[in-house]
Amino acid sequence: MLILNSLLKMKKTLFLISILFFVIAGFGQSETKAKYVFLFIGDGMGVNQIYATEMYLNAKAGEIKVDRLLMNNFPVSSNMTTYSADTYVTGSASSGTAMSTGFKTNNGILGKSPDLKTDYETISVKAKRAGFKVGILSSVMIDHATPASFYAHQASRNMYYEISMELPNYNIDYFGGGGFHYPKGENGDQPDAYENAAKLGYTIADSHAEFNKLKKGDKKVFALNPETYPLGEFHWAIDKKEGSISLADFTKKGIEVMDNDKGFFMMIEGGKIDWACHGNDGVSMVHEVLAFNDAINVAYEFYKKHSDETLIIVTADHETGSMFTGIEYVMHPELLKYQKISVQEFKRKMGKLKVGDEGVSFNKLLDIIKADFGLGNSDVGLSLDDNEIALLKRVYENQFKGNQDVNPDADYLSTDEVKSIAETAAYILNKKAGIGWGSSDHSSMPVPVRVLGAGQNEFTEYFDNTELPKKIQKVMGM
Amino acid sequence: MLILNSLLKMKKTLFLISILFFVIAGFGQSETKAKYVFLFIGDGMGVNQIYATEMYLNAKAGEIKVDRLLMNNFPVSSNMTTYSADTYVTGSASSGTAMSTGFKTNNGILGKSPDLKTDYETISVKAKRAGFKVGILSSVMIDHATPASFYAHQASRNMYYEISMELPNYNIDYFGGGGFHYPKGENGDQPDAYENAAKLGYTIADSHAEFNKLKKGDKKVFALNPETYPLGEFHWAIDKKEGSISLADFTKKGIEVMDNDKGFFMMIEGGKIDWACHGNDGVSMVHEVLAFNDAINVAYEFYKKHSDETLIIVTADHETGSMFTGIEYVMHPELLKYQKISVQEFKRKMGKLKVGDEGVSFNKLLDIIKADFGLGNSDVGLSLDDNEIALLKRVYENQFKGNQDVNPDADYLSTDEVKSIAETAAYILNKKAGIGWGSSDHSSMPVPVRVLGAGQNEFTEYFDNTELPKKIQKVMGM
Repeated sequence: MLILNSLLKMKKTLFLISILFFVIAGFGQSETKAKYVFLFIGDGMGVNQIYATEMYLNAKAGEIKVDRLLMNNFPVSSNMTTYSADTYVTGSASSGTAMSTGFKTNNGILGKSPDLKTDYETISVKAKRAGFKVGILSSVMIDHATPASFYAHQASRNMYYEISMELPNYNIDYFGGGGFHYPKGENGDQPDAYENAAKLGYTIADSHAEFNKLKKGDKKVFALNPETYPLGEFHWAIDKKEGSISLADFTKKGIEVMDNDKGFFMMIEGGKIDWACHGNDGVSMVHEVLAFNDAINVAYEFYKKHSDETLIIVTADHETGSMFTGIEYVMHPELLKYQKISVQEFKRKMGKLKVGDEGVSFNKLLDIIKADFGLGNSDVGLSLDDNEIALLKRVYENQFKGNQDVNPDADYLSTDEVKSIAETAAYILNKKAGIGWGSSDHSSMPVPVRVLGAGQNEFTEYFDNTELPKKIQKVMGM
Repeated sequence: MLILNSLLKMKKTLFLISILFFVIAGFGQSETKAKYVFLFIGDGMGVNQIYATEMYLNAKAGEIKVDRLLMNNFPVSSNMTTYSADTYVTGSASSGTAMSTGFKTNNGILGKSPDLKTDYETISVKAKRAGFKVGILSSVMIDHATPASFYAHQASRNMYYEISMELPNYNIDYFGGGGFHYPKGENGDQPDAYENAAKLGYTIADSHAEFNKLKKGDKKVFALNPETYPLGEFHWAIDKKEGSISLADFTKKGIEVMDNDKGFFMMIEGGKIDWACHGNDGVSMVHEVLAFNDAINVAYEFYKKHSDETLIIVTADHETGSMFTGIEYVMHPELLKYQKISVQEFKRKMGKLKVGDEGVSFNKLLDIIKADFGLGNSDVGLSLDDNEIALLKRVYENQFKGNQDVNPDADYLSTDEVKSIAETAAYILNKKAGIGWGSSDHSSMPVPVRVLGAGQNEFTEYFDNTELPKKIQKVMGM
């Protein structure tokens, strides 16, 4: 009581003191430092891609319910514009450059100005200079546009060899994911880019044993997924074998290797979300988002131990496929689970079937489609009507009787109007489930931003992708 | 210096005092009250609808630039899910009910549980009980689903007469916008709903003179737009004559009439954004978003004078049209300005042309299309190619030579595959500008939320539409 009375008597003084403390507190608050920053980029992942995944996860026939993925339970949720310097519809290179350097450039350019005269400094280099460790991770090739934009400066994202030779130049602490497109150049006659990285001090871990041996304090690590396709991207999450290595494993290893008292900045790309959307393969997209979500969960486990100093940002470089959810007021996400294989893997399977008259019959093909996409299984609500069967028949005649080869790797991302059996089956299933696609390309749609942790309030507003690195640098005190 | 020295000596005491003040300040902050709340609902307005409008506003040929509409400069930006009790793709009635009452119901139901047994209390009634004034505004008929969901309880949104008879039952202070669908019932043989409202104390202002006379403190006002079509919705913003009455005028009048020391809650619907999207009429949509934006600007002017006590929320009930922006990596928003008329008004114009052999020739029609949509004007980049001319020719033959009547009012929102000349011209222009449509229906896409003012931090997270009224009630202290 005595204290309270004196406090009341000192009202005026207290008022002044309180103002002083508010000012101090105010400064303190705006200086909230994030020591450990995870930037998750879902390539091509729009709001609808996340939402379709949530519907898929919770779908029981006849039940309308949405539980959220971890990112959608974060306390800050916003949207971000992505246009590039030369078009409203950005690509991964220009968008990655914006998110890494804070500058707009033309589609296709990595870390350089539109006139190619200026190299922009990346957030990776700034973070290194400020004493943070830096990691760059992707589920596709490490010289692909998104990861490359966090280290490289090249006139074109397609200059894969030049990018792979540039990779070791910035003392980045941890690379994790897929390998190089052309380690010895497109003609195979250049100095080996892996050897170049090793010469510059990188430990290249490209087997399970070497991956498992990586530990806290290891310097200059280049961890390659030993289970990739020849080109270096991860297997499709939907096709992945139980127990094989994942983006989440690479994230966990990154935390282990880079954990230190000064902090780190880690960019983790879910690269094949975009690929699935280019192919209008909704179910493979869902599985890629889930694999991406697993990696976010790993960061969240770290956050729980260091919540005052950790910031997790989940966003995208652009939306892909102009994907929409809901056709004629209906969604049947429960039907999506009957697709058991990626469109690309199904294409590979088709490629192994005999072509021509002695090859697979249409009825045999329908059986395969029923097993792999559920189509034709009336017990689960996936009967095929006459139009759908006629469509599949037309595509079958074209693909098998017309002796038209289907090359799953070269053709997968093409926007060719002639679709294969695989794409047609996926199209029919997507439509029945209520998922539609406006295109096979990117759109200009603003992307989702979901944020948790130290400095999260910097991200509540609607902002442009060039603001993203500035906001991160601010909350990291760089 | 002396003060500073004593302050430094009192460090410990000051620390304790500061904690006390932080606690007080903390409580104060979480109790931030919003006395004046504006809830803007852009019917059918997804992220892409807003973004297309921003591109339209700033588009010069060859320049890539996005300036933002006011709502996208608000400090809080989020996304909201909208699924209803019976489908992932909601309608305006179920979504309006969620936003007004906090409960999910089936598509088509207003303010009642899915089994129709329970009437849910609206935020309007709660706000009235708490001493706030309440206003409900729309640019379409006041018995349409969105405005109706803020007062009515009916088994179907189509029970327009029952809704119009229910309108005066809740002592709502200000209704503004379009009139009733069927004031005397569908057969014209029921007691007049306007007379019913008047009998229950409402002043019905349905002329410019009466509208202008409305003033601060007027009670139970029903302000009807005297310039509507017979059905009661506002003219399309793109077709509106200079100086005619707007949603912004109704908002301004609402503030004037309801301004009081205890505060108010005002819901303002931009209803024809949805209609334009159902018709896949991108340019009319843009003009509706701009008219909606004008109304938001009116609220913002009020906010500037009462910033500590005012909250502005802009959101949507659902997205319409599965609209996407960007086709083959290109947007040409500068082309949109050549459309000078709404698709619906163009249909009316076509309806007045003579049908049959003696009627309008195809070449004459092309001239009209050039004047109204810019199509065929190669000087501005809108040449028509052979395919486009063939498409227009086919539709022309169908519409004029086939003697097929086009009823612009009955047919406008239909999803019929047979499109009229008007819809075909809009489709071609939209495509050239880089705007595409996945459907003529709603989608399940989470909608934008943009917030400014007292209590804004309640809205930073990703949330469901049933949370919206709870958040508003919380910040209003209800």
